[in-house]
Amino acid sequence: MSKLLIIGTVAFDALETPFGKTDKILGGSGTYTGLSASNFKNVDTGLVSIVGEDFPQEHFDLLHQKNINTEGIEVVKGGKTFFWSGKYHTNMNKRDTLVTELNVLEHFNPVVPEKYKDAEIVMLGNLHPLVQNAALEQMKAKPKLVVLDTMNFWMDIAIDDLKMVLKKVDVITINDEEAQQLSGEYSLVKAAKLIHKMGPKYVVIKKGEHGALLFHNGKVFSAPALPLEDVFDPTGAGDTFAGGFTGYLAQQDDYSFESVKNAVIWGSNIASFTVEKFGVERIAEVTEEEVNVRLEKFKDLTNFSL
Amino acid sequence: MSKLLIIGTVAFDALETPFGKTDKILGGSGTYTGLSASNFKNVDTGLVSIVGEDFPQEHFDLLHQKNINTEGIEVVKGGKTFFWSGKYHTNMNKRDTLVTELNVLEHFNPVVPEKYKDAEIVMLGNLHPLVQNAALEQMKAKPKLVVLDTMNFWMDIAIDDLKMVLKKVDVITINDEEAQQLSGEYSLVKAAKLIHKMGPKYVVIKKGEHGALLFHNGKVFSAPALPLEDVFDPTGAGDTFAGGFTGYLAQQDDYSFESVKNAVIWGSNIASFTVEKFGVERIAEVTEEEVNVRLEKFKDLTNFSL
Repeated sequence: MSKLLIIGTVAFDALETPFGKTDKILGGSGTYTGLSASNFKNVDTGLVSIVGEDFPQEHFDLLHQKNINTEGIEVVKGGKTFFWSGKYHTNMNKRDTLVTELNVLEHFNPVVPEKYKDAEIVMLGNLHPLVQNAALEQMKAKPKLVVLDTMNFWMDIAIDDLKMVLKKVDVITINDEEAQQLSGEYSLVKAAKLIHKMGPKYVVIKKGEHGALLFHNGKVFSAPALPLEDVFDPTGAGDTFAGGFTGYLAQQDDYSFESVKNAVIWGSNIASFTVEKFGVERIAEVTEEEVNVRLEKFKDLTNFSL
Repeated sequence: MSKLLIIGTVAFDALETPFGKTDKILGGSGTYTGLSASNFKNVDTGLVSIVGEDFPQEHFDLLHQKNINTEGIEVVKGGKTFFWSGKYHTNMNKRDTLVTELNVLEHFNPVVPEKYKDAEIVMLGNLHPLVQNAALEQMKAKPKLVVLDTMNFWMDIAIDDLKMVLKKVDVITINDEEAQQLSGEYSLVKAAKLIHKMGPKYVVIKKGEHGALLFHNGKVFSAPALPLEDVFDPTGAGDTFAGGFTGYLAQQDDYSFESVKNAVIWGSNIASFTVEKFGVERIAEVTEEEVNVRLEKFKDLTNFSL
C-alpha cells in the first residue's frame, strides 16, 4: 500500500456564485485533495495542516470516515481556523476575494508524522513555498514523486523561494495564467519548456473548463474537461484534480508518462464532480460507481477512429 | 467523386500581428476553405464568390492549381475586391478591425454553376444569411449535408434571417462567444441544446487554442487544438477548419457521428498549419505527408490507455 502525504490548508469558506451563497462551510486545499484521493483503494493518505479550536469534530469525522489520517493536523488552542470568502460571477473562471483571515495559518509550521516520512508521493498544496519546503525537508527517504501546486500570489511575493523548491519537484500543477507569469512566455508550449528547466519533469497546465495539458520530455497530452450543463461552484476544482492525480498514481505506483496521462484524466474526472455542488458536498458523497461511469464518458469524449 | 460547393468571400487582407505585418494579400473565407478542402482527393470543389477587376490572375492560378473550380466566382468589371484589415494583439483570440471595404461584396448575388447544383455538401461561409439562403435555394437536389458558418455581426443585424436559414442547415460551426449570443445561454452544453432546436443536428463550437466541441443527439466530442510554439497569424483558421471538415466528409460520403468526429479532427489538423504563417502562405504549400504526420500527433495528443 503506497502512502500519499498531502500538505495543504483545512479551512472555512463562504462562497457566493450565480446559483446561491453559503455560510462558513468546510474548505481548504488539503481537504479537497484528501477527499478526492480517498476514491482510490490501497492508498494510505495522511494530511498535514493546521486548524483552530473552532474547527468542529464533525469535519474531522468526515475525514476519518474517508480513511484520511489527520495526525498531522495541528489544532491550535484558542486559535481560529483559516477563513476565505469569495464571489464568482457568470464567468466562473474569475472570482473576487471578499475576505481572507489567515488566523492560525499565519504561523503554520508543518510537522510530518513519523509514519508518513517515507511516503511514496508528496503533494505540496498551494502554500508559501517555504512551508512547502519545510514539509519536504522532513522526508526520510526521497519520495518517488513530489507534486507541487502554487499560484500567482507566491510568484508575486516569494518567487526566489518558489524557484528553490521547484528544483526538488517532479510535477507542477498550475493554471495557464500562472504558467505564463512563472515563465514570462505567452505560449504555453514555450512556458512549459522553461518551467521544465526550473525542475519539474512533468508540467500540468490546468485550463478550467478547457481541460488540462501535460508536458513531458517534448511530448504533450491534452485532457478534456467534461462539458457540464452548469458549473455550480468551482471552488476546490484544482485541489480535487490534485487529489485524483496523486491518488491514482499512489495506487498504481507507476510514474511513467502513460501512467501520468491516466492520472490527469482521473484528476479531471473527480474534479468534474466537485463543481456540481457547493464546497465539498458532492465530492464527499460521490460513489465508486459514479466515478467509474464518468470515466467512460471521458473516454467517449475524446475517442475517435481515424 | 463527391462535389463540395463552397460559398464564401475571396478578398484582400492586410494583417498585423505581434510577429509582423503584411500589405494586401490573398484572403477571404472561401479562399481558406477551398484551399483547405483541396487536401482531400476525389472531391470536386466549386467556389462561389465575387471579386473586382483588381483581383490578379496569379490568385486564380493558385486556386486552379489546387483543382478548385472558379466558374462561380463573378468578376465585376471596374469593381474593387472586398478588403479587410485587422490587427491582433498578444492574445490572438481578440482582434481589432482597422478597415472594412465591402466593395463588390455589397451587391453579391451568388450564382451556383449548373455543375454544382447537385453537390453532396454545401458549405455556406460567413456571409449575410440571405446571401447564404440565396445560394442554397439554387440547389436542384437536397444536399446530403449543409454546413453553415456565421458570426456575431449577423446575429446583431439579421437574427431573423439567420434563424430562417438555420432551419435548413445540418451543421453549424461557430465560436464559443457566438454560441452564447445565439442561444442566450452561458453554458455551452445548454447553448448547444437550444441551437439544435433551431435546426442543425450537429453543433460545432470552435474554441481557438482550446480546440472544438461537437454536439449531436445528446452526445459530445471534444477535439483538442495542437499546442503550438507560436500562433503566427490566426486569420482564416476557422475557415480552414470548415474546409478540412467538409473536405473530409465529401471524401468519405459518410455523415454518421463517428465520421463527423473524424471531420472535426481533420479540420483542426489542417487549421493548425494555417496559423503558422501569414495568410494562406502555409495552407497553400502544405503537403500530404505533412498533414498525415500531424494527424498522428493529434492521435498521440488525446490517446490514453485507461
